[in-house]
Amino acid sequence: FDTSPEAVKLYMRYNHWIPKVFLFFFILVDLSLAIFEKPAVFPVPTLYTALVELLCLLVFSLRLVHYAKVIPRDKFWKDPKNICIIVILVLTVVDLIVYESLEAANCYAVRWSRVLRPLLLVNVTEGRQLRRAFRSIRNALPQIFYVFLLFMFSLLIFSLMALKLLGKRGLKTIDGAPYFTNYLEIVFDLYVLVTTANSPDVMMPAYNASFVFAIFFILYILINTYIFMSVFLAVVYNNYKKYLKEEVRQLVRAKRHKMVRAFAVLQEQRAEGGEPVVTQTNWNQIVKLVAFVQLADLLNIEVITLKSRPHPLQSAFDTIIVISALIATIINSVITSSQSYTSRQILDIVFILRVLRLIRVVDSIKRFRAIINTLIRIGPAILTFGQLIIVVYYIFAMVGMELFKGKIQFFEDGSVDPARAYCGNPLLKGTAFAQLNYCKNNFNNVVSSFVLLLELTVVNHSGFAAVTHASARLFFIVFHIMVVIVIINIFVAFVLEAFFVEYSVDKGDLQTSLEKKIEEL
Amino acid sequence: FDTSPEAVKLYMRYNHWIPKVFLFFFILVDLSLAIFEKPAVFPVPTLYTALVELLCLLVFSLRLVHYAKVIPRDKFWKDPKNICIIVILVLTVVDLIVYESLEAANCYAVRWSRVLRPLLLVNVTEGRQLRRAFRSIRNALPQIFYVFLLFMFSLLIFSLMALKLLGKRGLKTIDGAPYFTNYLEIVFDLYVLVTTANSPDVMMPAYNASFVFAIFFILYILINTYIFMSVFLAVVYNNYKKYLKEEVRQLVRAKRHKMVRAFAVLQEQRAEGGEPVVTQTNWNQIVKLVAFVQLADLLNIEVITLKSRPHPLQSAFDTIIVISALIATIINSVITSSQSYTSRQILDIVFILRVLRLIRVVDSIKRFRAIINTLIRIGPAILTFGQLIIVVYYIFAMVGMELFKGKIQFFEDGSVDPARAYCGNPLLKGTAFAQLNYCKNNFNNVVSSFVLLLELTVVNHSGFAAVTHASARLFFIVFHIMVVIVIINIFVAFVLEAFFVEYSVDKGDLQTSLEKKIEEL
Repeated sequence: FDTSPEAVKLYMRYNHWIPKVFLFFFILVDLSLAIFEKPAVFPVPTLYTALVELLCLLVFSLRLVHYAKVIPRDKFWKDPKNICIIVILVLTVVDLIVYESLEAANCYAVRWSRVLRPLLLVNVTEGRQLRRAFRSIRNALPQIFYVFLLFMFSLLIFSLMALKLLGKRGLKTIDGAPYFTNYLEIVFDLYVLVTTANSPDVMMPAYNASFVFAIFFILYILINTYIFMSVFLAVVYNNYKKYLKEEVRQLVRAKRHKMVRAFAVLQEQRAEGGEPVVTQTNWNQIVKLVAFVQLADLLNIEVITLKSRPHPLQSAFDTIIVISALIATIINSVITSSQSYTSRQILDIVFILRVLRLIRVVDSIKRFRAIINTLIRIGPAILTFGQLIIVVYYIFAMVGMELFKGKIQFFEDGSVDPARAYCGNPLLKGTAFAQLNYCKNNFNNVVSSFVLLLELTVVNHSGFAAVTHASARLFFIVFHIMVVIVIINIFVAFVLEAFFVEYSVDKGDLQTSLEKKIEEL
Repeated sequence: FDTSPEAVKLYMRYNHWIPKVFLFFFILVDLSLAIFEKPAVFPVPTLYTALVELLCLLVFSLRLVHYAKVIPRDKFWKDPKNICIIVILVLTVVDLIVYESLEAANCYAVRWSRVLRPLLLVNVTEGRQLRRAFRSIRNALPQIFYVFLLFMFSLLIFSLMALKLLGKRGLKTIDGAPYFTNYLEIVFDLYVLVTTANSPDVMMPAYNASFVFAIFFILYILINTYIFMSVFLAVVYNNYKKYLKEEVRQLVRAKRHKMVRAFAVLQEQRAEGGEPVVTQTNWNQIVKLVAFVQLADLLNIEVITLKSRPHPLQSAFDTIIVISALIATIINSVITSSQSYTSRQILDIVFILRVLRLIRVVDSIKRFRAIINTLIRIGPAILTFGQLIIVVYYIFAMVGMELFKGKIQFFEDGSVDPARAYCGNPLLKGTAFAQLNYCKNNFNNVVSSFVLLLELTVVNHSGFAAVTHASARLFFIVFHIMVVIVIINIFVAFVLEAFFVEYSVDKGDLQTSLEKKIEEL
């Protein structure tokens, strides 16, 4: 490292909070461009969005150049994250130019580089947590893959048995379509059964024919839904623990290393041949220079401050609630005095805020506090998962919008358009999708795409194969594998681990249990 | 213990495999009486079933008397399982007499003691594994209860918010019913949302009104479906591990104790004041008397035999498949020669059996073998869980049949009855339940009850509230709590633990890892 005053100044400037916030703001702007680009929530000429995007790219480039000046050249070029950013920037510019020129020539064009946008969030220097999460996923992938192969094998065998068992009986689904006659259809149906989305529906025709067939489905659900899904969780959890172990080990090693270096800086040789010591004056000087907590931060030591009751959440929580209730009451009285009628809505909000104070009561019961504390401790990690989810959702939303935009239309409540009954797509006439009024579950803009993807995370229903092509199902299967099998399981593993630590901490001392955890790992 | 030859003989007779099999056979007969009792799959006069049940009760009583003679009197009366059996037997006899006399007088009567039948399976001496499983559940209950209270608190608060937020907007569900206006309905709907059964449906009216409301549901799903359900798993898993630890500790202690006692029997004092020793002759004598493995069994030592490849599963599996394929081929050729046409069905079975041999190929790949081995090792435990599930299902099926029998009717495929469109119950006219042709999901007999309960385990749909009373939903909620939150989570915890042991074994030696496991616990 260069330790000249200028370099340090540059470094300090790089690490200042203002440029960081600035950077995140522009990433946010870049990501939210999807709201204004076609298919848009609020349509805006493409030229404007392109200009804003160029501005964002400029900011990212400047930040990258700054970073390149801060750290040594060879280190900069060896770091994959910098190369990633450069590639993303170049590809985006190329895509922008191609798209704008095609647009000008009235040709069909796809803004494919939008898929790359969320990757900026990952590869920026500050996205350390997010990169760690992605690395943890990457490490788990091989083992997940082997289990997945076995799962696919079991799925294919069960589908074959279903075809042989049920295919030639001339059964019909409720739509009147032939039941279980096409192998690929069966594979898809049974895959969806694993997500429990079509749970009784898929077996009803067979079960109506004879209850013996129910045994086949029971066996399938036991093996694939319960056992294999648990195995996925086990594999992800195991890898997560292994990875955590590695992280803790590295942290401990780094801490030790830094301590030794800090000592080397502070030490002085008292006597010839004697042991080197840190003098009191030196120590006081450094303590004066930096506050103790900052020092700990410098040395990467976690300082565990014992919580004094009432704990910070409570007071912060109380303050927020009381202040918001106050504001709501003030607004209410202003409205009342000006329009001489009481706004029911705002009174309701005040009421709900008061109800939320009940959480304090619950928190004061010891049994509950342990659980709530753990939930709060999970908080920051949930934010990392949130970013992770947003990155993945954004990519899927971009792809989904290109594939499915405009296929399904939503008609407002008052609409009398006859197309409203089938979501504006004749192919959906009489399907359960249209009957259940799912029309707003579409990929027509980025907001509805996100909501739809969230629904797909909970339950994987897919009416989109009907409006495009059977291969569109691949999109939903890939989404399920990526989000439900991998990311949600990591989330569950995380919650599990947090609770196990909590339970083991409950019994003993925090410090010793942490140490034991580290040793054990 | 009485060690007179007579008592030992009696004990040997009690522990002989024939009476054990006999007992299980009669328990099976007793349980399967539900097939013939009203509401029956195969109706039979109540007198016959009553006689068969009396016979079963007689057998159970005899077995109990035998057991009472084998073990000391005070021990017998202190054991809750014996008292349980006596209470069950007495109650069943009382119920039988009351029911038969009411039946004779043409009064309405309920065979409420049928609920107690599966408890026999638990309380019989041989149901040790099952009792252990129940004990483990009982131990986990207090902690589950605290989390459940918090979960209910969150559910109630969210419901209140939903009522305030959405109740006065005049929204309608697809059935045209008012949306989110009744607090209890909201609580139920949001509870079902946790099971993901009504996932997009419940939010569609609000989402159609404005996408802002989707945020409410997203928050709800994040907190209640993902976090709270993971916390339930964590609590159950943690208790399971704690319990396992206790079990292993007791086993180790018992083993040590028995070893000491065995040594005391075998030892002889060689020299005055010298250490007691076991002479070779004594040792050979005992080894001659009992085979080594039996000896190990006697001392409750687990003998770990190193598996020699090809492992037992493979050969047994191969044999079964080859023999069944052979039998199928023979039957096929017999049919062909007698009727001069090839039975497609049987050829298909032969084909599927051949496909199943593919499992061997998969098993021969090392990566997969580790996973498959673990799955096989889980096998016996799955049987215990199977019994557990049957006990719980049986109880719910009995209660469900009394509550809901005949409410929903299933019409065979050729039926032209107009009632077929609404499952024979006018209340179901136009509901999704009837539209999706779920009519066979009913409590009209014990077989369909079991299949329905299995479906409810996977996805908790409940059309039954419509045909009886809103309070019927309680039945489904209780079922969900008991089966999905408690039992399925124990099953998942079990699979997880099995895989963690497998992964840690993979790396080191089996023996040491087991020892480490015990020490660690």
